[in-house]
Amino acid sequence: MDSDSGELSEGELSPGPEIFNSKSLAIQAQKKIVSKMATKVMANMLIDDTSSEILDELYKVSQKYTKNKKEAHKVMKNVIKIALKIGILYRNNQFNHDELETVEKFKKKMNQAAMTVVSFYEVDYTFDRYILSGLLNECKDLLHKLVEHHLTAKSHGRINHVFNHFADAQFLSVLYSPSGEYRLFLKKICDGINKLLDEGVL
Amino acid sequence: MDSDSGELSEGELSPGPEIFNSKSLAIQAQKKIVSKMATKVMANMLIDDTSSEILDELYKVSQKYTKNKKEAHKVMKNVIKIALKIGILYRNNQFNHDELETVEKFKKKMNQAAMTVVSFYEVDYTFDRYILSGLLNECKDLLHKLVEHHLTAKSHGRINHVFNHFADAQFLSVLYSPSGEYRLFLKKICDGINKLLDEGVL
Repeated sequence: MDSDSGELSEGELSPGPEIFNSKSLAIQAQKKIVSKMATKVMANMLIDDTSSEILDELYKVSQKYTKNKKEAHKVMKNVIKIALKIGILYRNNQFNHDELETVEKFKKKMNQAAMTVVSFYEVDYTFDRYILSGLLNECKDLLHKLVEHHLTAKSHGRINHVFNHFADAQFLSVLYSPSGEYRLFLKKICDGINKLLDEGVL
Repeated sequence: MDSDSGELSEGELSPGPEIFNSKSLAIQAQKKIVSKMATKVMANMLIDDTSSEILDELYKVSQKYTKNKKEAHKVMKNVIKIALKIGILYRNNQFNHDELETVEKFKKKMNQAAMTVVSFYEVDYTFDRYILSGLLNECKDLLHKLVEHHLTAKSHGRINHVFNHFADAQFLSVLYSPSGEYRLFLKKICDGINKLLDEGVL
């Protein structure tokens, strides 16, 4: 975490026995350290372009399906918030050994779900709403387990909100219907997922 | 870490298929989360009044001894920076099991040094520059060991700078000399240390 480059110049706080105040110096130093921490967190967490494109398509799908912009916006915001909070916990080494095992299980399950999403799109007559819904709900359960000791009921509510929406069997049936209405969105989503799979992200 | 209260109001980013952009939403959410993290860190780390008073007295002593305001300011700033960085590492659970054992050893050694500082002041003819210097240097060694895997050479340099100054046998001899020149500073420092010892801080 230590990467001090821009030292406080002495001029920023002119030393002198009457002026020196360790409390104010401490506060300044704290702000500087925290600011660097924040910058580092931000730099490490920028969402990549492919994931961003997938999320944008998912937003369009949600809006079309729910006919409700606010609802679609809300569910996407929840996806992003959950992803960010878990990312922060992970990068700050907050997960213990058992939790890290849950992370690995989640990654494997998410990879399996991603491959299934693509496979059901690419191979006609293979789509099964309950298989895909089941996989996604297993991802949901793993997320709940992962953050049990770290996040509040509000975040658990967000996780449920996201998966109640995207893992819903009826929603998935509509998304995968062979008619043209959602097909283009699904194609773009699957193109993005294939890209992430190729890059080893998913 | 989860304490969301002020939700992004929907008006902050008006939803709409043409306007929705998950990347910008993610950036906003990141900034908000990081800002909360920073606020929490700051709130937990405010320097207490007694420690602040001790540091202010140490500054006066350093300035008098070195006859150099900038040098005294620098050494005090290094004390504060090291304390803050270690505080952040500790509160973010960054130390492993062995390192936490080093923390306990450091606390015990610092407590021993603090009691010795006071005892040498209160009981005439007991001061021994090499005992006190030795204790402080043991504290220094434990700090180096503690942060070995976390902070850079710069922080190790800061630790050395602080202890080369305050653990210096000649400096300690001057500080404890029975003449009146430093006695008042030492009294205030020891009053503060006694207070921290009473409160169990040291």
